[in-house]
Amino acid sequence: MPESQLGTTIVIFGASGDLTRAKLIPALYRLFQQQKLPSNFKIVGFARRPYSHDDFKNEVLNSARNVLKDAYNDEDWKRFTDMMWYSRGDLATPADYVTLEAFLEQIDAGAGNRLYYLATAPEYYVPVVENLAAINATDETDGWRRIVVEKPFGTNLETATELNTRLHAAFQEQQVYRIDHYLGKETVQNILFFRFANAIFEPVWNRNYIDHVQITVSESVDIENRAGYYEHAGILRDMFQNHMLQLLCLVAMEPPLSFNGESLRMEKSKVLRALRPAIMGNTVRAQYEDYTSAPGVKPDSTTPTFGAVKLFIDNWRWQDVPFYMRSGKTLERKSSEITVQFRRPPHLLFDLPKGKRLKPNILALCIQPDEGIHLRFETKVPNANDVHSVDMEFRYGSSFKNIKLPDAYERLLLDALNGDNALFISDREISLSWKFIDTIVDGWAGDHAPPLVKYKRGSWGPSESDLLMEDDGRVWRMRCGQEPPV
Amino acid sequence: MPESQLGTTIVIFGASGDLTRAKLIPALYRLFQQQKLPSNFKIVGFARRPYSHDDFKNEVLNSARNVLKDAYNDEDWKRFTDMMWYSRGDLATPADYVTLEAFLEQIDAGAGNRLYYLATAPEYYVPVVENLAAINATDETDGWRRIVVEKPFGTNLETATELNTRLHAAFQEQQVYRIDHYLGKETVQNILFFRFANAIFEPVWNRNYIDHVQITVSESVDIENRAGYYEHAGILRDMFQNHMLQLLCLVAMEPPLSFNGESLRMEKSKVLRALRPAIMGNTVRAQYEDYTSAPGVKPDSTTPTFGAVKLFIDNWRWQDVPFYMRSGKTLERKSSEITVQFRRPPHLLFDLPKGKRLKPNILALCIQPDEGIHLRFETKVPNANDVHSVDMEFRYGSSFKNIKLPDAYERLLLDALNGDNALFISDREISLSWKFIDTIVDGWAGDHAPPLVKYKRGSWGPSESDLLMEDDGRVWRMRCGQEPPV
Repeated sequence: MPESQLGTTIVIFGASGDLTRAKLIPALYRLFQQQKLPSNFKIVGFARRPYSHDDFKNEVLNSARNVLKDAYNDEDWKRFTDMMWYSRGDLATPADYVTLEAFLEQIDAGAGNRLYYLATAPEYYVPVVENLAAINATDETDGWRRIVVEKPFGTNLETATELNTRLHAAFQEQQVYRIDHYLGKETVQNILFFRFANAIFEPVWNRNYIDHVQITVSESVDIENRAGYYEHAGILRDMFQNHMLQLLCLVAMEPPLSFNGESLRMEKSKVLRALRPAIMGNTVRAQYEDYTSAPGVKPDSTTPTFGAVKLFIDNWRWQDVPFYMRSGKTLERKSSEITVQFRRPPHLLFDLPKGKRLKPNILALCIQPDEGIHLRFETKVPNANDVHSVDMEFRYGSSFKNIKLPDAYERLLLDALNGDNALFISDREISLSWKFIDTIVDGWAGDHAPPLVKYKRGSWGPSESDLLMEDDGRVWRMRCGQEPPV
Repeated sequence: MPESQLGTTIVIFGASGDLTRAKLIPALYRLFQQQKLPSNFKIVGFARRPYSHDDFKNEVLNSARNVLKDAYNDEDWKRFTDMMWYSRGDLATPADYVTLEAFLEQIDAGAGNRLYYLATAPEYYVPVVENLAAINATDETDGWRRIVVEKPFGTNLETATELNTRLHAAFQEQQVYRIDHYLGKETVQNILFFRFANAIFEPVWNRNYIDHVQITVSESVDIENRAGYYEHAGILRDMFQNHMLQLLCLVAMEPPLSFNGESLRMEKSKVLRALRPAIMGNTVRAQYEDYTSAPGVKPDSTTPTFGAVKLFIDNWRWQDVPFYMRSGKTLERKSSEITVQFRRPPHLLFDLPKGKRLKPNILALCIQPDEGIHLRFETKVPNANDVHSVDMEFRYGSSFKNIKLPDAYERLLLDALNGDNALFISDREISLSWKFIDTIVDGWAGDHAPPLVKYKRGSWGPSESDLLMEDDGRVWRMRCGQEPPV
């Protein structure tokens, strides 16, 4: 096929930034090492700093070495960076795009595919897109044109819709690759494999058998030096609108026709569309104890660094099954996990010690850092008429001993290069996610907002979060990684 | 309660035999150590040898030490055997029962409970029962009277029915405790806990989700010095009529109302009653290569030492789901395991490498010697669009580190002493089991018998056994203990 003979150029806007150094270049290098990049690939960094080509290569070398560790070697790096260039320019200056285009045409001889990567601050997304459109760099006559857009994608439904409108003025929806790097994680993709490559879980994956679902994405770090971003974002925009709702979609979605973009996006949208608008009494809003003393944070800041939300999905499968989600900074430890708690057996046919009840089965999908799957079930205690909970476990580290889980960016960059948008977010999902989150953001700013409570560093958030569960006779569970006593 | 102040005397008929030495006395001793025996218990051995009380104690001491190992200590043994006596007598001589009764009344002061244990050769079951009845030793006016009957219970439906009739002439059915020691195994009881103390397995435990079930009970030993018994029994009477059909019942039964004798026996009977009579084309009959050269075996013996049977249960839950059972002597290794193979997912939504299919989920219930539960499921291969089978595992040895699985006889003796017949076989189950097995025994002796084929020691039986599965597109699986390469 002629198209496969075309070269492919990856143009990184914001090439002097953290993302480029820490994620994009290392991921591209590893793909290169695994011979997964297109045969005639080129990388062009675009940024304002007055780098020569070699300056740019040296600039990314140091970080790459740090990140790549054992995967780095001089020889591969040399061959990899032989395909790397730098084009100086200002993101908001149209003339610099003319220069860029001339350079690109020079190195790809006037025909080739282009992957544009928006590794810039969000305020530059629209300028870059419009400047590319102005010089007709979005036209696919001479090869495909795709654009990867990083998060945050807007700050609410209105700004996200505006951004989508501007994008669609320059690109078709199928040219747009909106990143949520959680979808690039092996363990996140495995949620779908677990559900749909096995026949025994799907029959019990519904309101008849599931009592509730929990999703925890906890971070142990504080906001570090990111007050400028975080003061505006807060926990809802930073974690819930994207990662948490995406995890929710994968857990709750109907079986898609196929593992492709069209099917997956449609099924995820259906989940998001079925979300019952949150009521404020089902939310917890909190801030870690010394947040306001961080540099760059206003002394009277009400930005939440922790949130917990109970939500419902109004469809046939999930009616009345609560989904509890929580996320926060400075929590006891870093963990992303999904817990599916099943209902208790309908009838107790064993004589148990007085006052003892059967415990429900619990399935834990451990996203990170202790990647694996745990299934808690009840077994007979030897030599006694009693039951005891035990775990059946699967751990990536044990079952795939010699395979290092790849970084999410490797998978996502490769998919974008291959034109597979299954693990990227559609415009519809973006809008529906913001619509749901805006209700909470607005509610937290309104008369019926839950109080902003403080919580200790190293805790699991405020007691209000535990009460959200306890009021329903439930508890937060952390079954991945270090296991609390049963 | 007055009854609890009564003493309890355990009378062992056949007290000089192997079973008494290897199983009954060690089990009673361990129950004594755990203070689980009734407070005022006594043990009386009855046999023909001219032992004094001390002779008897010394006779059992040696075997007990061998069996008990670390659990043995002189002090406990002394206190235990202080409650042990011997009464000499001939099993078929009525007068000797008068002597026995006089002795029993002497040591229990005329009132007390009695557990009669038939540890004799099967031909003595009826004489003992009738002699006990003749002296009214089955009457419960002065305390309960129970009788434990060892296997084999009859040799076909006719003889088993005759034995039941004779038993019922002397005892009520609820006084009769028919042993199948498999039911005393923790892992066998755990089949019911696994199914009914967990809410997530029962919904898929039926023809909609299960492709087939396998039950393998393999032995590595040959018939040793038991030709006299085995020549008549063969594999069907030795293993299928009892252990294998009981395992089948536990896997296939409907949820019982309660874990008690009435409910369990009723549900097990329903499974046995629903068994479709086996057709000979679904059976394999084999003999290990040098069986006929064993001492005591006829040179032209056609006794089968291996059998494989495909059977069906004609009820709502299991219609058309094949159950494959096999058992044999001199096989590669000793293992008792039940494999539940589920159906494949109904729809493949992932791109797999060409020609690759999703594998079905497999649940393995490992009875012995590697006690545990394994669940095979499919997971995504990191860094590839491919699936790989992994196991979630639970092992008794890991989860109950400091608990030694008790011998089946401990549990069963204790249950009989406590009047709990849940783990004993009812007259109805005996009849229904024989009815099913007789069809095969008769078929194997008739014109349409499958050929008696030979198989090698250390193999998994004859190739005909594998063909029984392969003809259906299936394979025998051994997932417990040492794992063959996937």
